[in-house]
Amino acid sequence: MKMYGNWRSAAAFRVRIAMNLKGIAYEEIFLDLDAGDQFKPDFLAINPQGAVPALFDGDGPPLTQSLAILDYLEETQPGVKLLPADPRARARARSLAQVVACDTHPLYVPRVRNFLMEHYGLPRERMLDFLRHAFTTGLKVLEQRLATEPGTGRYCQGDAVSHADLCLISLWVGTGIFGIDTAPYPTVKRIAEELLALDAVAHAHPLRQPGAPVS
Amino acid sequence: MKMYGNWRSAAAFRVRIAMNLKGIAYEEIFLDLDAGDQFKPDFLAINPQGAVPALFDGDGPPLTQSLAILDYLEETQPGVKLLPADPRARARARSLAQVVACDTHPLYVPRVRNFLMEHYGLPRERMLDFLRHAFTTGLKVLEQRLATEPGTGRYCQGDAVSHADLCLISLWVGTGIFGIDTAPYPTVKRIAEELLALDAVAHAHPLRQPGAPVS
Repeated sequence: MKMYGNWRSAAAFRVRIAMNLKGIAYEEIFLDLDAGDQFKPDFLAINPQGAVPALFDGDGPPLTQSLAILDYLEETQPGVKLLPADPRARARARSLAQVVACDTHPLYVPRVRNFLMEHYGLPRERMLDFLRHAFTTGLKVLEQRLATEPGTGRYCQGDAVSHADLCLISLWVGTGIFGIDTAPYPTVKRIAEELLALDAVAHAHPLRQPGAPVS
Repeated sequence: MKMYGNWRSAAAFRVRIAMNLKGIAYEEIFLDLDAGDQFKPDFLAINPQGAVPALFDGDGPPLTQSLAILDYLEETQPGVKLLPADPRARARARSLAQVVACDTHPLYVPRVRNFLMEHYGLPRERMLDFLRHAFTTGLKVLEQRLATEPGTGRYCQGDAVSHADLCLISLWVGTGIFGIDTAPYPTVKRIAEELLALDAVAHAHPLRQPGAPVS
């Protein structure tokens, strides 16, 4: 498969993990988001939204939106399953995933940050309050649910990695980048550390992709 | 089934339509979001996120996040299917749904609007620029994709109603409430009008629910 992505895209990170876990061979083409590669005509022809990831599976049309791609891989690829078989457990894994992918991550993407700075004239440091509020709101919900709901196990849903974990870790790695205090979220932290110990996650880590800053 | 919702919740609207289309009997309990019912301990015990919808199917734990609920209903309930059988078509329907449910709707919910007004001291009218930007960005992407991708039919994906349509119409009804100019989105409009002509959609319409303003 061939994916258009970027080292720092939380959404592309989720898809890389899924492909690693399922043993799917893929090539990733890294767009330079700072240079606006995502808004150039060549890429807009692939995804009019100007967003990564966009995945090609053979000759078919591009697949977009990370959660839709995860479901597509789940439905079409052999290998490890990333959603449990029980419908209620599946629904819980998906709900936790969507706390991140719907209600948290879209609030702090560059297009939103840029709008706040450009339209409202907010200096970067004040704009970041919006981003930090999004992070802490999402992390609080995850912590509360993971710490109290009986479905939580070694990972978000039971003892197998699911879409919820792919989303959790894609949020977690941002806490370091943006200096979010993680002390109030011990359950999220425990699961994040379990995930980072997996080769499939470690190899997909944003800071291990081409273009990432050298630490 | 029993759902906690609210007349104006775009997410609850999606779930109402699905239940109507599938012929599921349900009772909806309407929270007063202006009075902060969603943040009272009784409801936070159901959904720590303080968000609707929350759905009970029998004695099981609450189901949350509208897209996760739609998938749960699809996987467990008889009746009309709201995702196509073909994996690529399913992925496209889901991707279009997520343009709304991930990248558009979460940007204009009350908690975001309140943060912009309270934290940055923006007057309501200036705050609404953020909301309008979210709407127009989402509508532009939908229009571009629906007008050009071969998968579009009578509805978003082919000639059968799918999750993409439930999300599209949940965005569309907001254009009237918030005074968004819809002229640049003729394909979205055509599909919205098809959908509003369906009983299952009309009966689920926000303005036909208890608590809605009388027009």
